[in-house]
Amino acid sequence: MNLKICGMKTEIITIGDEILIGQIVDTNSAWMAEQLNLNGIEVYQITSVHDNHAHIVKALADAEKNADLVLITGGLGPTKDDITKNCLCEYFNTELVFYPEIFEHVRSLLSSRNVTINQLNRDQALLPTSCTILNNSAGTASGMWFEKNGTIFISMPGVPFEMEAIMTEEVFPRLIKLGIMQSIVHKTILTYGLAESMLAEMIEGWESGLPEYIKLAYLPSAMMVRLRLSAYGTDKGMLEANINQQVKELQNIIPEYIFGFDDDNLALIIGRMLIKSSQTLAVAESCTGGNIAHFITSNSGSSAYFKGGVVAYSNEIKSKLLEVPSEMIDTYGAVSQQVAESMAIGAQKVLNADFSIATTGIAGPDGGTAEKPVGTVWIAVAGPSGVESEKFIFRHNRERNIIRSTQSALDLLRKHIINDNSALI
Amino acid sequence: MNLKICGMKTEIITIGDEILIGQIVDTNSAWMAEQLNLNGIEVYQITSVHDNHAHIVKALADAEKNADLVLITGGLGPTKDDITKNCLCEYFNTELVFYPEIFEHVRSLLSSRNVTINQLNRDQALLPTSCTILNNSAGTASGMWFEKNGTIFISMPGVPFEMEAIMTEEVFPRLIKLGIMQSIVHKTILTYGLAESMLAEMIEGWESGLPEYIKLAYLPSAMMVRLRLSAYGTDKGMLEANINQQVKELQNIIPEYIFGFDDDNLALIIGRMLIKSSQTLAVAESCTGGNIAHFITSNSGSSAYFKGGVVAYSNEIKSKLLEVPSEMIDTYGAVSQQVAESMAIGAQKVLNADFSIATTGIAGPDGGTAEKPVGTVWIAVAGPSGVESEKFIFRHNRERNIIRSTQSALDLLRKHIINDNSALI
Repeated sequence: MNLKICGMKTEIITIGDEILIGQIVDTNSAWMAEQLNLNGIEVYQITSVHDNHAHIVKALADAEKNADLVLITGGLGPTKDDITKNCLCEYFNTELVFYPEIFEHVRSLLSSRNVTINQLNRDQALLPTSCTILNNSAGTASGMWFEKNGTIFISMPGVPFEMEAIMTEEVFPRLIKLGIMQSIVHKTILTYGLAESMLAEMIEGWESGLPEYIKLAYLPSAMMVRLRLSAYGTDKGMLEANINQQVKELQNIIPEYIFGFDDDNLALIIGRMLIKSSQTLAVAESCTGGNIAHFITSNSGSSAYFKGGVVAYSNEIKSKLLEVPSEMIDTYGAVSQQVAESMAIGAQKVLNADFSIATTGIAGPDGGTAEKPVGTVWIAVAGPSGVESEKFIFRHNRERNIIRSTQSALDLLRKHIINDNSALI
Repeated sequence: MNLKICGMKTEIITIGDEILIGQIVDTNSAWMAEQLNLNGIEVYQITSVHDNHAHIVKALADAEKNADLVLITGGLGPTKDDITKNCLCEYFNTELVFYPEIFEHVRSLLSSRNVTINQLNRDQALLPTSCTILNNSAGTASGMWFEKNGTIFISMPGVPFEMEAIMTEEVFPRLIKLGIMQSIVHKTILTYGLAESMLAEMIEGWESGLPEYIKLAYLPSAMMVRLRLSAYGTDKGMLEANINQQVKELQNIIPEYIFGFDDDNLALIIGRMLIKSSQTLAVAESCTGGNIAHFITSNSGSSAYFKGGVVAYSNEIKSKLLEVPSEMIDTYGAVSQQVAESMAIGAQKVLNADFSIATTGIAGPDGGTAEKPVGTVWIAVAGPSGVESEKFIFRHNRERNIIRSTQSALDLLRKHIINDNSALI
């Protein structure tokens, strides 16, 4: 990266044996990094270390050398393996004192949750004398703000929603007050259906023509590739205008592969189209087992267009609730074009919806045959103009086969709605 | 941690702007850390850095100082923002050469995926002369194994299933050959229904009595707390026996809160009980929107006991498919004990299952009232002996309300099955 980044250099330190032995995925770093970036603060490095006194202190010292701002999560809970507070006391040469007002906060929070207070909870009111205490509205472990040799250190609990509450309510307002601001504009273009290298080739000319101050990153996952444009500079309005111009040019090059922007997802885009056209949706899921319905209902407001669905895991349910003739299942097998289309038509009718999606396949690891190997999935989509279907063979494990089936079904529906309605986004 | 850990000290370095700006969550580190730990290799630190030449080279140098083994992911893709290979060449003072056999692998893999090969793909056959090439059976970016001053460096692509393929097929066999082995025994006890501090207090005596070489960690998430015991030593059989003895003692202290071990999950435990008793399950979901069915069907073999479900998002579907009287919905509201129980009984009957779960609630952010605020959820469970229900108020965002509802519903069912059947695990 040859771009000049002004502003604060930030390091995130996440503390916890559970991260280093892989028992939890460190989602805190991603959340903090995203929020900081949106506010123009660059994260230079993320470091995860054990609940180990010497290593925590070393990580603090290393961070002080490189960063102006150090965000620390983890190790502030009430149990014995939580040692961060003692490490901070050593590093900042200070000691713990009892804060009655913090104890009162812990007491009232726990009593509202019907938790009986004990000595471990009481100890959460013991905090270093030399820090600014950051209120934790969502939990019992307070945040702490230290300063040393021009570097700011902020320690927060590792429970994600508690960290998020402290960041939002206590840290950001203070950083804004300190005047830490910088112009970075990000725009992410979401594409579906092209492998990374094919996409890169199709947009090569456009990519080469990007100005110096706009940077492009490819973020691939399954059949989805997100293209992130980042513009750096002093004039935010100018950066936004230039990024939007670049996006317009890209839309002319690969219109059919772009399904949305930034935090959009396939289900959200489908929802927007259905709200615009006042139409409704139903699902009939076999191999996806409820995951398509879950993706759709994860978006708030989905009750406006989503009638519901049938998870038809057994053949009995396919026939009884979705009106798939049992002779059809006997003749063609449950994983077949005929059954997929019949499920879609059944869902459309029984659930009284304009559009429907149906899936039937073999998610694995068992159930595959030579003719229909694990990963074989038939997806059908029905709409006012009729039904269409497509066969996929995903050669992955159960989890990924279910996710790919879900995404492919949603993309098939998205295209079907566009063709059916010309109801463009 | 005062325990002596022998064996290799490992650092994981994940490379990619997308991690540092929080656009993806770094799941690779967690997977690698878990696998290494299960093989007795301690991960000392995880470091995430930008696609920045100077920073990558610095991270390699820092890791060399502390670690015997350095695992690197990311930045090996075919596009311009992937610079790891050039950084490795600089650090190991080597250069790229064209490997015809790697090109043949890239060509045949892409042609099986119907991707047309281009120059960017061709460049993936350019690899450093001084490394051992690690075959990537799942993708086009090869892994690389370097050695320098006694430290092993392994570079792999950032696409999770490609990294996993290289680790499993190429890295682990080599590490085993090198004789890197150590005895660490982990056992995780899964509890549901107790807050961390209450749990800690209940098991305080047991915890204090743990021998020096067994370490306990609390891993809380929602109402679930996982207790991880780790025993370190030379005699694996002895460690296992001692851990099992500790687990037995814990089971005597909090029998009703322990629902499983290690990678178990609530849905898996329920499945095991149902297979044992040859009984079946159906679901009727409103506010959880398919997520319970998804949790159940994420476990392979679930078709043996899971008949299917109805996602009854609209009241029309609750009445039509689950036989909930529409007058009942009018009188008590869709979010009520009466409707939840009627949905459960309807699902049990219509889907012809021994047990059923029903949820109806307000996931948010909209739809709450003073009487029934966002987060209000009624959960009902029906079984051969009848129906029971419970009201919950989860005071979180939509995503967490859905997850908590799902977990609480599964735990309610678990207890109901145990009581109904005395079919213990």
